[in-house]
Amino acid sequence: MTATETRMKPVMRPYLSETARFASGKDSPRDFLERCIAELDRWEPKIGAFVSLNRDGAREGADRATARWREGRPLSPIDGMPLGIKDIIETIDMPTEMGSPLFAGWRSQRDAAAVAALREAGAVIVGKTVTTEFAATVPRGTRNPWDVSRTPGGSSSGSAAAVAAGLLSAALGTQVIGSTIRPASYCGCYGFKPTVGAINRGGSHDFLSQSSTGTLAASLGEAWQVAYEIAIRAGGDPGFPGLAGPASAPAAQKPRRLAFLETAGWAVASAGAQQAMEDALKRLSGAGVEIRTRHNDPRVAVVETVIAQARQRSADINTWEGRWPLNTYRERDASKLSDVMLARLKEAEAMTLADYRQMLGERNKTRARYAELAAEVDATIGLSAPAAAPVGLGSTGEPASTVHTSYLGVPAISLPLFRDQGLPLGLQVVGFENDDPETFAAAAWMESALG
Amino acid sequence: MTATETRMKPVMRPYLSETARFASGKDSPRDFLERCIAELDRWEPKIGAFVSLNRDGAREGADRATARWREGRPLSPIDGMPLGIKDIIETIDMPTEMGSPLFAGWRSQRDAAAVAALREAGAVIVGKTVTTEFAATVPRGTRNPWDVSRTPGGSSSGSAAAVAAGLLSAALGTQVIGSTIRPASYCGCYGFKPTVGAINRGGSHDFLSQSSTGTLAASLGEAWQVAYEIAIRAGGDPGFPGLAGPASAPAAQKPRRLAFLETAGWAVASAGAQQAMEDALKRLSGAGVEIRTRHNDPRVAVVETVIAQARQRSADINTWEGRWPLNTYRERDASKLSDVMLARLKEAEAMTLADYRQMLGERNKTRARYAELAAEVDATIGLSAPAAAPVGLGSTGEPASTVHTSYLGVPAISLPLFRDQGLPLGLQVVGFENDDPETFAAAAWMESALG
Repeated sequence: MTATETRMKPVMRPYLSETARFASGKDSPRDFLERCIAELDRWEPKIGAFVSLNRDGAREGADRATARWREGRPLSPIDGMPLGIKDIIETIDMPTEMGSPLFAGWRSQRDAAAVAALREAGAVIVGKTVTTEFAATVPRGTRNPWDVSRTPGGSSSGSAAAVAAGLLSAALGTQVIGSTIRPASYCGCYGFKPTVGAINRGGSHDFLSQSSTGTLAASLGEAWQVAYEIAIRAGGDPGFPGLAGPASAPAAQKPRRLAFLETAGWAVASAGAQQAMEDALKRLSGAGVEIRTRHNDPRVAVVETVIAQARQRSADINTWEGRWPLNTYRERDASKLSDVMLARLKEAEAMTLADYRQMLGERNKTRARYAELAAEVDATIGLSAPAAAPVGLGSTGEPASTVHTSYLGVPAISLPLFRDQGLPLGLQVVGFENDDPETFAAAAWMESALG
Repeated sequence: MTATETRMKPVMRPYLSETARFASGKDSPRDFLERCIAELDRWEPKIGAFVSLNRDGAREGADRATARWREGRPLSPIDGMPLGIKDIIETIDMPTEMGSPLFAGWRSQRDAAAVAALREAGAVIVGKTVTTEFAATVPRGTRNPWDVSRTPGGSSSGSAAAVAAGLLSAALGTQVIGSTIRPASYCGCYGFKPTVGAINRGGSHDFLSQSSTGTLAASLGEAWQVAYEIAIRAGGDPGFPGLAGPASAPAAQKPRRLAFLETAGWAVASAGAQQAMEDALKRLSGAGVEIRTRHNDPRVAVVETVIAQARQRSADINTWEGRWPLNTYRERDASKLSDVMLARLKEAEAMTLADYRQMLGERNKTRARYAELAAEVDATIGLSAPAAAPVGLGSTGEPASTVHTSYLGVPAISLPLFRDQGLPLGLQVVGFENDDPETFAAAAWMESALG
């Protein structure tokens, strides 16, 4: 099989733009779903994006949504939208297996907070999407719809692949290192990792302190809308203000100044990725946006320095915070945990609470340093990944371009604007804590300016 | 049945003070456990403190601890200590029923973070203790061991009753309004509600933002030790610094200044309770501790004013935060939720995220106001409840004396020093955020000064 033979041409399937035709009956949520299912039947054997499917439940949901749109009374703009749920997040009608044989067939008998909110908004839950073991490391076989010899990224592997291939209009992902933005970049869909705490994680087994539930989507509009519909019904994590912003995607707003952050990813970025980024910076500059970099602004240079260790420090924080539940899972059946997980648990057991407290202190200082940039620029930008998806399914790819946003707890969006080796690559737009709508507004402008 | 006929004389059973005799074999964890089980057989039919028991598992655990103490290699100071776990917290060997028929027999197949840590420390988990429906409202029949016609308080009902009656040396509780300190007061045991976030709540279904896992205990020493042994192994909630402090209970430290907070509880306090409190204030004053009150310190008066609404505001915050998972439970089987819960869910659904955000803002302002007192006094004190446990099992009693500490997120300790109507009543010692050890030191001094 040559490279060319593994290549395909996936097409995304936005929903919001179609709903105008639902009232008249020219189209309907049920018809839309059937088109998704037809694609699913065609693609799923090649890409393996799903762990579980509930076709019957989805069709019933789509029929109810069809009736509501015909009556002019949709429950929300996403009423009837076909969605996928990353299999780390609980659903009442399907198992939640967490990418782990330990949870094969496990049912929580409830919906996670985000899923309950989506159902209230009328969304149609089509299936559970493949994730790596406990949304962390070991991949579970999903393939990239642009090139089935390549990884779709992870840990939101199935969500990104299914959205990119047009099987769903959006799907939930989670990110603690790069698990939403990287697969969005590799698969060529939109990705949104909100401010930490902005979307309620109740019933999501991705409970680390810098983890965030977000969206993979067929358009920037649905990336916002799905998150918004969750937030107004389920809020953020208890004690957090939750995602704030307008009832539909924030309008494009030209930024006055942007900072380009190389991050640790730049040094390992492909020539094609570097070229794409540099071209974009030139075009933004040409459009009158002032670009700050580590070379022309010492405050940007400071941020580059303090985020340089984000990957190792995030790994350490996650390791301590993951001591539980891994310890009780090992106690139950160690043979069903990967060697990677068992090794991580041993590392955690060698750490102390005092170590952890110091790591949190470092993270807080780094966050404060980054927050100071908000006085200088409207957002920061960079690559969503150092290159196109690598060949092979043994790894979900390189997190060096994304980990800083999780470490900082700030909103990040991946726009599928670039190409590397003829494959998708994202432009990453990163905002400031709880400025998720402003980040969207800047991203929307960049999409039209660079798209 | 007259009042006298329902009265009993429970005696607590501290463990830490007994361990000195374990090395020689004069006593052993297994013997200690058998004494607990003998009491359990005698008391449990009268007080109904347990939902589930694992006698065999406890005996095996006690035997292993016995061997370790004999070899001079206990896993921790609480190795072999018989403990109870509030039934809102997951255990791998017993169901977690949450005081709800919806979860009858439900098994999570894992230990909560705190439980896993306790097992690592060698603790012997005897059983799951009765809680109200979802640790919130409807009581589940546990009786007060001092007077079986009275409530033990709640929602940590079974934990407090079992510890007070000497069936266990300590038990886990949780508090979001008054669920640890009030039952400690009513049952006459020690209670410790740590700073919010200080003890890892992973696998505890009490996930509200002002909820805190704590201890009910037979001595101040075990109230600290059990919490400490959890914290060093499982930390606090992800992103929180976790309980800090010495490896055994902080030594008594005479406070220079204390503030007496009346709270909303004072106006409804019994004459006996008011008398007990006033006597204590006089004795503390006589011992050279300066007492500040709303009458002699305007900063204390300000705090009294800002905490006056703590109960309503806590209820509102908890209502919004409880929307999930109640909505998915109602969807599953509404007939298994109490009317109180269904009504609360309806209230939640009438709130908006903007309402919630405003409530959080108010709470933060109130917390900041209270924090300013730390410059003035070493701790604040007051009643743990407005009176002794009321007659009847239909309610778990009055939270007016405790809710401010949960609203403020600060550490609180109940010392069983007072009597009202011949029944136990607690002195509440309340500290400042993350000053849990200092709060213990002040409480230890007060125990010896007033005891």
